[in-house]
Amino acid sequence: MNFLEERIVKDGVVKEGNVLKVDRFLNHQMDIDLFNEMGKEFKRRFEGVEINKIMTIEASGIGIACIVAQHFGVPVIFAKKAQSINLDGEMYIAEVESFTHKCKNQVIMSKKLISPKDKVLIIDDFLANGCALQGLISIIQDAGATVAGIGIAIEKGFQPGGKIIRNLGYKLESLAIVKSMDCEKGTIEFAS
Amino acid sequence: MNFLEERIVKDGVVKEGNVLKVDRFLNHQMDIDLFNEMGKEFKRRFEGVEINKIMTIEASGIGIACIVAQHFGVPVIFAKKAQSINLDGEMYIAEVESFTHKCKNQVIMSKKLISPKDKVLIIDDFLANGCALQGLISIIQDAGATVAGIGIAIEKGFQPGGKIIRNLGYKLESLAIVKSMDCEKGTIEFAS
Repeated sequence: MNFLEERIVKDGVVKEGNVLKVDRFLNHQMDIDLFNEMGKEFKRRFEGVEINKIMTIEASGIGIACIVAQHFGVPVIFAKKAQSINLDGEMYIAEVESFTHKCKNQVIMSKKLISPKDKVLIIDDFLANGCALQGLISIIQDAGATVAGIGIAIEKGFQPGGKIIRNLGYKLESLAIVKSMDCEKGTIEFAS
Repeated sequence: MNFLEERIVKDGVVKEGNVLKVDRFLNHQMDIDLFNEMGKEFKRRFEGVEINKIMTIEASGIGIACIVAQHFGVPVIFAKKAQSINLDGEMYIAEVESFTHKCKNQVIMSKKLISPKDKVLIIDDFLANGCALQGLISIIQDAGATVAGIGIAIEKGFQPGGKIIRNLGYKLESLAIVKSMDCEKGTIEFAS
């Protein structure tokens, strides 16, 4: 097991309905030292890949993306989920369906923040069905920019998102891939 | 002018309705080097204050809070704005009214992440009417924890939030306090 898998076993909680709660360290309370370890590991896995921008989606991807960005020396842009009066001008809009929230969201990104010269590393906390990720990829393509790679903290390997994204030819690196979970025994099995 | 005020003048845009757009560096694209400068400055301003946790609210506070947290060596917790099926167990809930979104939100924090021993530094990107901030303070008080201080990137000094919070006796440090803005001339005046 790597450092993230060890932490998931130690502090994660398996709930009914294939829910993995990691709110003690990843997406409600955030362990910044852990995020820096993740940044080092993503830097290693994307060694030699040209990256000039990191993209994520609000809210729980933002903290990870900002800390990881320090290891690449690039700025972060985050897609917004709802229209705000502060978001005017031209925008890229993609519609995505959330697995956890059971609703559709519009994913929005200001056109001035992404251009054809951008080589974008997408960072997010979870990959399950991959709907949010598909929305981000759609925005990057609309902008004529390049998806340089995708870095995920926790992939639910028993849901189709990872397979879909890899089938499409993207370089997807997940730090922990959960193969199965048992909420009664509280056990988690990772893909090796 | 300090480093943040200079950046606001350079890359901020004044819009009608007292809207200050800083989406090129603060709350849509995020300049991580700038956030580290902010972290250093907050560390200086809260020198000698006991702080063991940073609290913010989704979404645009999260990136700043995570980078600032590195300068204090503490974890970050962020309050959520909407109920999710991933948020079970006991929660603190405060109702807040957003200035920019013109709607009421529930601010939610898991009870297990905050306890009476916590000395909390609140970090956020904007302070205008102070409604979100009042919600965070309310949660910290419900938990029996202590508000060690409040660090804000940009305070709209012509709106009442800052005065209310200082009147309540909290140590509030805003890196840039906007005294007035003129959307026709595109000028911004800071409080000295």
